[in-house]
Order: sequence, then structure tokens, then C-alpha cells
Amino acid sequence: MMKIEAGPYLKDIINPNDLRKVKEDDLVKVCADLRQYIIDTVSVYGGHFGASLGVVELSVALHYAFNTPDDQLVWDVGHQAYGHKILTGRRDRFHTNRVYKGISGFPKRAESEYDTFGVGHSSTSISAALGMAVASKLKGDHNRQHIAVIGDGALTGGMAFEGLNHAGVANANLIVVLNDNCMSIDPNVGALKDYLTDITTSPTYNKFKDDVWKALDRLSKLGQVSQDILSKVHDTLKGGLLRHSNLFEALGFRYFGPVDGHDVDHMVKIFNDLKKIPGPKLLHCVTVKGKGFAPAEKDQTKWHAPGLFDKVSGEIIKTPNPIPQPPKYQDVFGHTMVELAEMNPKIVGVTPAMPSGSSLNIMMKAMPDRSFDVGIAEQHAVTFSAGMATQGLVPFCNIYSTFMQRAYDQVVHDVALQKLHVVFCMDRAGIAGADGQTHHGMLDVPYMRCVPNMVVSAPMNEEELRNLMYTASLDKNALPFTIRYPRGNGVMLDWKRPFTEIEIGKGRKLRSGEDFAIVSFGTVGNMAATALDELKKDGILGAHYDLRFVKPLDEEMLHEVFRKFKHVITIEDGTVVGGAGSAVIEFMADNHYNSEVIRMGMPDRIVEHGEPSELYAECGYDAAAIAKKAKSMLGVRQTA
Amino acid sequence: MMKIEAGPYLKDIINPNDLRKVKEDDLVKVCADLRQYIIDTVSVYGGHFGASLGVVELSVALHYAFNTPDDQLVWDVGHQAYGHKILTGRRDRFHTNRVYKGISGFPKRAESEYDTFGVGHSSTSISAALGMAVASKLKGDHNRQHIAVIGDGALTGGMAFEGLNHAGVANANLIVVLNDNCMSIDPNVGALKDYLTDITTSPTYNKFKDDVWKALDRLSKLGQVSQDILSKVHDTLKGGLLRHSNLFEALGFRYFGPVDGHDVDHMVKIFNDLKKIPGPKLLHCVTVKGKGFAPAEKDQTKWHAPGLFDKVSGEIIKTPNPIPQPPKYQDVFGHTMVELAEMNPKIVGVTPAMPSGSSLNIMMKAMPDRSFDVGIAEQHAVTFSAGMATQGLVPFCNIYSTFMQRAYDQVVHDVALQKLHVVFCMDRAGIAGADGQTHHGMLDVPYMRCVPNMVVSAPMNEEELRNLMYTASLDKNALPFTIRYPRGNGVMLDWKRPFTEIEIGKGRKLRSGEDFAIVSFGTVGNMAATALDELKKDGILGAHYDLRFVKPLDEEMLHEVFRKFKHVITIEDGTVVGGAGSAVIEFMADNHYNSEVIRMGMPDRIVEHGEPSELYAECGYDAAAIAKKAKSMLGVRQTA
Repeated sequence: MMKIEAGPYLKDIINPNDLRKVKEDDLVKVCADLRQYIIDTVSVYGGHFGASLGVVELSVALHYAFNTPDDQLVWDVGHQAYGHKILTGRRDRFHTNRVYKGISGFPKRAESEYDTFGVGHSSTSISAALGMAVASKLKGDHNRQHIAVIGDGALTGGMAFEGLNHAGVANANLIVVLNDNCMSIDPNVGALKDYLTDITTSPTYNKFKDDVWKALDRLSKLGQVSQDILSKVHDTLKGGLLRHSNLFEALGFRYFGPVDGHDVDHMVKIFNDLKKIPGPKLLHCVTVKGKGFAPAEKDQTKWHAPGLFDKVSGEIIKTPNPIPQPPKYQDVFGHTMVELAEMNPKIVGVTPAMPSGSSLNIMMKAMPDRSFDVGIAEQHAVTFSAGMATQGLVPFCNIYSTFMQRAYDQVVHDVALQKLHVVFCMDRAGIAGADGQTHHGMLDVPYMRCVPNMVVSAPMNEEELRNLMYTASLDKNALPFTIRYPRGNGVMLDWKRPFTEIEIGKGRKLRSGEDFAIVSFGTVGNMAATALDELKKDGILGAHYDLRFVKPLDEEMLHEVFRKFKHVITIEDGTVVGGAGSAVIEFMADNHYNSEVIRMGMPDRIVEHGEPSELYAECGYDAAAIAKKAKSMLGVRQTA
Repeated sequence: MMKIEAGPYLKDIINPNDLRKVKEDDLVKVCADLRQYIIDTVSVYGGHFGASLGVVELSVALHYAFNTPDDQLVWDVGHQAYGHKILTGRRDRFHTNRVYKGISGFPKRAESEYDTFGVGHSSTSISAALGMAVASKLKGDHNRQHIAVIGDGALTGGMAFEGLNHAGVANANLIVVLNDNCMSIDPNVGALKDYLTDITTSPTYNKFKDDVWKALDRLSKLGQVSQDILSKVHDTLKGGLLRHSNLFEALGFRYFGPVDGHDVDHMVKIFNDLKKIPGPKLLHCVTVKGKGFAPAEKDQTKWHAPGLFDKVSGEIIKTPNPIPQPPKYQDVFGHTMVELAEMNPKIVGVTPAMPSGSSLNIMMKAMPDRSFDVGIAEQHAVTFSAGMATQGLVPFCNIYSTFMQRAYDQVVHDVALQKLHVVFCMDRAGIAGADGQTHHGMLDVPYMRCVPNMVVSAPMNEEELRNLMYTASLDKNALPFTIRYPRGNGVMLDWKRPFTEIEIGKGRKLRSGEDFAIVSFGTVGNMAATALDELKKDGILGAHYDLRFVKPLDEEMLHEVFRKFKHVITIEDGTVVGGAGSAVIEFMADNHYNSEVIRMGMPDRIVEHGEPSELYAECGYDAAAIAKKAKSMLGVRQTA
């Protein structure tokens, strides 16, 4: 384990109390050391990178100016909070960031009192901080500060606007720090971004109030002739225009900025001033994602989470693998989108701010007119897709399973109730890995399969993903159609095969057996196959059925399963509460079978971060666990 | 059945083609007839009222100026679309509005080609209309118009902002008509409302651009002395200020208005002008909810959906009932909130724009500082509650079951993952009645019980509701805690009894039996009790267990059920896919019981509108259906 040394100005800072003893003159040096510490650590241990580099000065200034943890600091999304973590008692554990049993890559209440609110999903900070501010107000504490730090990307999420709208009238002690770097993971999109750019790039605009007032003052010296006219201009400006000259002021905030978010001294001064102003305030800071590490400033998407890299040369380390690897499911999705869209002019693609994460960027490059990045706006992404579907288009709306939770009502109300032909590609279904509890796609099977009219499917491999996408695109299958698949690499090298339609609701029998049956849903079927191979060596012959569809179920296949087998294991990469296994036992109960059914999958508790293999093992549904469970179900004595 | 006669200017208008043949001079008379028709019908048949009266002129002007249904008109929420329905081929069926098997109270694609998008939930129209507009653009149709009509209340919903943000850069043919009446069902709240009020009430603000320009022109005649100064002002204004003088213009829209939404002639002219302007446009119309019916203009909340009334006297008809009735569950909630909050200073109440619907207005009146109407903003309501919970407060966040879908991610990510003490009171759980498919609380049991850390409960009567609320408020039970209960009246006259704590996860046995058991969840238990009474007359003795908690389950009680009974019926007011019945069979499978279990509840299909009793019967889980099902399960021969 490589030990990362903190620089001279950082090494004595264990928590913000230590930071607050530093002379203001030395803050620039603290920032330099903190930035270096992040570079040193992430280059060898991995993690998110550009976002935290961009807020080094902001992190230092906030903890210097405010009395954390009593003052409440909420980071939106939270992958930018590495500096915050290092400054708040976790430097010695920072190398365990995102590692199994290590600290989380996001702020987390259970981890530190400085992490006032757990984050991971976007756009929650204003609402949370306002809740804190209103609570302080109710308790009569009018000095306590509540600060939400939110990026311009996260600000496009609708709930941020809901929070602003309430905060503007709640008259509580709230400071919103807008960290404006024109980026989400990919470049930020939408009208708001253009607006913020206008504010920050137009020199006349920034200072217009001062300028106008000064000019009016000077005009007033011209004498009586102009007084009437002047008075008219004056009243007009004062009557409304200046009061609402700005989107945020329109919403009841006092707006300050834009300021250079890398000028730590200036930021400290401003924060100290803001403390004295009651009510809702917004400080607009302009920062550069990846600040201080040239390659990261240049290609911000690539350096959002670059993996390991050489901190001197700036080269990202690619472990050479002599053996060709199966592709990521994401890339299979992206390339297949282009193929399908070339065949079918009705197909369009939609992503809420995840073009590179979902690989829809492959289609966006090939067909810019037919693929849409709508910003961090899952709700809009779904209803916008529904609107296109009413006109006969076939939108493929790609949203990570965990983020689909944010568009659940739109899925139900705008797509399913109207039986519109929208295909939901739910990426990151199941264990998501190092991003942890906020990012696992744990709940989509129960929350999707209860929705009327919805088809719920999962491929076991790349070819199945392609065929499900093809199937979902066909006019004859014009239904709300979900396809869930995990993050990461598939299992096939020769994946680009001709499309074959799959009958909706048809599973497949992968192998026969005698002793028991496994019914799997999705890519965990591959772990089941491994387990069955192992069991075969011990003379245990298990059958394997791949559900493919959890809605509608393949009833013919399930009748076969329950007629033949008294022992059945269901396995899925998602919660066992109401999931695919529950669909199977609903079928069993409805049809009066009574086999023993063991449901394997994610347990009904929070699952933390780690490598998928570590988490499958912990949750007890990797190949070894499946084999073990089968043996215990069959009463086979097991050796330790 | 009373026949409503259309006035002379309305009677020949069957659809918008007929309307478009009317001379412009006569449109005012068409409006008068349409308004009267709505008053005549709603006064005797019931339904939503004030919203539709407020948009009579808007409805006429839109269908007159635009080429519907080819031009796409999307009504947000849709309870204001009565005029639209009457003008689009449904006048003869309008008396069946909201009646079982009659037309829907909301626009619905299956009902008419003029209903371009099904609505019911708020804030979807901009996203949907933008999807339509982008589809037209992709097809090369640049003349087609796409109009979203959205109220100022619905505009506070975050997804409306997401839609605006995307529309501002999508460069498609979109007209947003902002129907500004300062109301949702209750008075609209939030900073946006204040802003809109400022725009509409400040005469200087409205015309500020013209005024400033004119003033500058006149100043320029003052000669060289002032030219430099003037030029400075001029540049400042032109450089940014005027371009972004307005919240909507900041988001890339061209803003027009405000205009009088009751001046039908003017509206027609404006719409004809707007057609010629490409790109995203917003027309700000000021209307009065209840316009043209004095009592409805005066008390807009009361007249949102007043029930039947005397259209001459303006008196709402109250059917006198000599027998005292049990209270609405809503009022039990409202009064109990005040009682609990008086005992426990940590309790606060939150509603997203439903103070009167949820009866939180009882607390808002008694304790204005501790109860919050946050506007139509379910997402913010939940995360704002989470923020307060981090500070030790105990928020009761009341959201209708169907609207909780919109805050699902916040429930999971901001409350459950952090195990915060927020109590979710899910009103309108189960069959919602006349509001129909968009409003039934059908899915909450599956989507809530799969969430780790969540307690999911339902009371069978008023006393149980009170005790569950009390239980949920206790420090020892500091968990994410949901309580689901239906719309409408309870079953107890003497409901205000002292609070008793209920142990979390404990059900109750209501009667013993021999032949079979019913396991019920929630108020449907009362229908089960009636069925058991009936069955007893036939000598069939069924036991009755009330689950109370579907998570955690009362395992001890369920062991008793499955040890004793080979025949079990589960019943719930919600979907049978993954619902409470599924939780029971999961328990059965996990514990190797194999009784016959029949799950009764909402079927896996869209359920339309009607009286709850009609829908229970249709869905097959009213008392008669339960009794019948029990007999068939037990092999008892039944007479027709």
C-alpha cells in the first residue's frame, strides 16, 4: 500500500478546526497541498477526479469561513467532495475511498458529522439545506448557516428549481453556492447553461446595475431639461427591472457574483460577508473542472473519473490485456442503437446527461439530429420521449436503474397508462460497484413489474441485449418496454450477430437437469451457469431456465419448472423483496404448485460499495453461494 | 336524467371545425354559452368547476386560432379541460363526465383525437408538447403548432422547469400558454408566484422596455454633453439586461404578455401572430379561476370541485343526513396532526399543494409556523422533510399515493438510505373514485415495501390511523415510516380515542375461524369483515387477521395463519402484483408452508373511474366478491 504524504501546509490539518488556525495568507498554500494530495491519491487509487480538483479553493474557503460542522454544509451529488473529506478527519482513510469496506466516494451521514446529508443523486442539496435552515429557524437559532453547493449541471434537475422556489419565500438562512463549470460529467446542456454563460461572459452585464446607477447620477447633473425624462427611466428601472434583473432574483434570492472560484482569499471574504445577510442568497462561482491538472482541464469528460494515471506525464494507465475482452454492455447498447436507427427511421435516443456513461454518445456522433441529451432531467427525459411516441417515433430512453426512480411517475402516468411505445433501457441495473449504495440498481424489478402494460425484460448476454432491443423496436411490439442490464463487461467476444426477434414473454431453457432447477433473470444467469457446472462435478444435475421476461412471465416454461422440480432457486441482480423471484412464487401460488423455492438476490438492506465480485459474495449470490445453496436445499452434506 | 340545453351560439358547434366557421364577432357569445353550459352541467352532475370556467375564452380562442387536432394542444393537469371536451365532440356525453363508464374528467388519448396527451398529474405538458414539436421537426413539418397550456401552480413542479430548460435550446415550434390565476387547488405558493404577480401588477414593469427605449431616444436629443453617458446606459441595457429581463427569456423563450385571458378576441389575434414566430414562445395570460360565477370567483378553493349546487343562488347542496357520519380519513389526519404536534414540539407537517385535499390546512391554521405548503413539488417536499429530520424534527409529509410516485427517488435516496425519521402519510391509497386511472393509489405497496429500512403500514379504521400516526411519531420508532389510507369516510363515529402505541410489525387477529383465513391490509379489512359475517350465515367460519404492517411482517401471526389454515385469502386495496398478498406468499415460500393462497386486490390492468363501490365490484374485491371467492376456494356450491 503506497502511503501518500501530505504537503507541509496540509499535514497538520486533521479537521476544520486546524484549518481555521491557519493564517489567511497561507490559504493558497493549503489549497496547493490539498490539490496535490488529491492528484497523488487518485492517480494511484482511482476515483472521481476533475470535480474535486475544481472545488479545492471552494472547499478550503467554506471550511475556513464557516463553523462546520455546526454550520451545515451540503454538497450536491458529492463526487466533488474529496477535498471536503480530506479536510474533515478522513485523510488517513482517504486511500480506502470507494474500496470495499473503505470510505464512500460520496458524503454519507454515517461516516462523519461533517457529512450533513448523504448524496449521490443530483439536485437534492437546496431542498435538504432549506430543510435544515427552516429547522434552525424553528428552534430560534438565527446565526447558524446552511450552505448548499450545487453545480450548474445539477441545477437543471427540476427538484433544484422546486427548492429555489420554496427557499425564495421561506426567509431562512440559506446560502446556495452555484459552482459553475459548464459541465456535468459531460458538457452541460440546456437554456440555463447558455444563460449562466451569458452572465459570466458579458462584462457589461455583470456590472450593469452599478453602471446604470452611475450613469443616471451623472445625467441628473445635466439640469432640469432632462429631469422628467430621467425620472421616467429611473422609476422604470427601480420599479421592477433591477429588482428582477436576474433569474435567481426573480425567485427571491439575492444574487452575488459571478466570482472566481479559484481565488480562495476572495471567497473567504465573500463568505464572511454573506453570513451577515439574512434570507436566501446565491453566490455564483466560476470554476474549472480539473483545475490545476492540465490534461484534466483540457478533456473534462475523460478526466471525470479517469481510473489510474501517471501524475507526471498525465497519461491514463491502460492495463494491456493480450486477450481480447468482451465489450461493455454500454457499448453494445450504443452501437446497437446506431444499427437499429439506420434500419428504422422512427427510432430516436434520449439520455438525461449520461451520453458517455450510457454510450449513447456513439449515436449522438453518428446521428446528432435523432439523439437527445436533455440534461440532468430524468422526468423530462421520459415525458419528452412519451411526447415523441405519440407522433409515431420509437424513443429509446436510456436511464440508469437508480436514476429511473426519479422518473417513476412519468413512466407510470405518461407512458404506461397511455400504453405508449417507449423503450426504457435501464443501465446499471443490479450491483453498481464502487459508487455504492446510492447507485445500485436494486429496486427496478419490483417498481416496474407492478406497472400495468409494462414489459420487463433482462438479457443474459450481449446477443440477448441486442435481440431485446431489436424486439422492443418493432411496431408489432408497440408497448412500454424495459430492458435492464448491468454496468460493465459482457461475456461474448463475437457479440455483433444478426438480429433475431424474441417473442415477448418467452424465456429459454438453457440446460436440462434432474435434481433441481435454477430460474435466472438477467446476466446473473452466467453465475448460475458457473454454479451448475461446479455442481455437475459433484454429480448434482441442475436445470437452468432463463426468464428473459419477468413481465409477462413465460407461463408454459414455469409450468414445466414446477411440474418437474420440487426444488427451485431463483436468482436475480436486484432485491428479493417483490422481485423476479417473487413473480415466480406468485405464479406458483396462483397455479397451486408447492415446490420449495429459494429466492437469491440482493438482500433487503442497504448494500455498500465495493467491486461487484465482492458484493455478490457478500450478498450471497455469486456462483459459489449458488452452488452452496443448492447443496443445502438438496440436503447434500457440505465440507467447509 | 336531466338534459342540458346548449345556448344558440353553442348548439351547432359539435367540433372545432364548426367553431372555426363562427364569425369572430360572435366568439364572445360562444364563450357565454359555453360558460353557461359548464355551469348548468356541473351544478347538477358535479365535477371540477372553477378551473374550467377560468379558461372558457382560452379554450375557444385556441380551437378557433389553431388547426386542432392536427395542431397539438396539451392541457396540463386537465381538470380545466371541460370547455375543450365540450367543443371537441363530447357535448352529448358530457353529462357522463367522471361517471362509471362515462367520459373521463381529464383529457385522455383513448377518448378523442383532440386529447393529444393523457393528463391528471401536474407539470407534464411542456415536456410532452416539446416531444411532439421535436417529432414534427424531425419529420420536416415546420408549420404544425404544439401548444402546452399550463397553470402557474403546475409551473412550480420541477419537471416543468426541466421542460423549459430543454425547450429553450431545442428550437422547435412550441407555444407555452401560462394560465396565471394565482391558484392551484389552493392558493399557489412560492417565489415564482410572487414574481408572476410582480410582472402582472407592476404597470411600469410590463412596458419597461418600450419606456426605457423611448426615454433614451428623447434623452439623445439633449445634445453632445450627454451622449457619452447615454451611450454607456444604452450599451449596458442592450448588452444583456433587456435580452434577459425576464425569467422565461433567461431560459431562451420569447415572452409575450401579460394579457387578459378573458378577452377572447385579443387572444385569437395573439395566437394568430404567435403562429408566425418560430421557436419557443411563452404567452402569459391572466385569468380568474371561477370566472363568470361570482361565488366561485370569491372562494376559489371551495369551488375547485364543489359538488352539486344551485346555479341561481350559488348555494352548494348539502344532502342533509339525520344520522351522524364517520369522519373522512383526511380530517382524522388533520386533527390528529394538531393533537400530536401539541404534545411533541418536534412534529412538523408538509404538503405539496394539497392543504385542503389532505386536511393539513387544519394544522396550517392552528400552527402556521410548523406546517408547510411547498407548492406542487413532491420531490422537494420529501427532501425538505429529510433535511428537517436531520435536525431532529419529525416531519409528517402528506402526499397522495399516486403523487408519491413523483417523489420515489427522494423517498429512497434521501430518506430511506439515511434511515431518517420521516413519516409519509399516503392519502388516496387504493381506489380513488371519480378521478380515475391517473389518481388511483395502486402501486405504493410494491414500490414502498421493496425499499430497505422502510416501515409500510395501513390502518383499518380511524382509531388505527391515529395510533399508527402516534406510533410513527415516537423517538423509539425513528424510521422512515409510511401510513397508507384511502380517500373518504371511515367507519367509526367515536373515533377520537386516546393514543395507544402499536408495536411495529404487529398485526392483530380480529376473529377466529375454522374453514379458512382472510389476511387483510388496510381499510378493505372492513369489506372482509362484512364478507365473513355473510359467510357465517352459511355456516362458513373464516378467521380474520389484519396485517397492519406489510413491512415488517408479523411473522408470529403469519406462522399461526399458515399452521392453522390450508386456505387463505389476502385482500388489499392496491395491485396484486408484488403487493401485500405477495409479501404473504413470500413469507409462505420462505417458511415452507404450502397453503392455497388467493390474492385479491386491484388487477394488473388500468382501472378506470367510477364510484369506489362500483370499482371494488368491477375489480372483484368487494364484500360479495370476497364471500364468493371464499366459497369457491372451499368448494362450496354456489347459487347464481
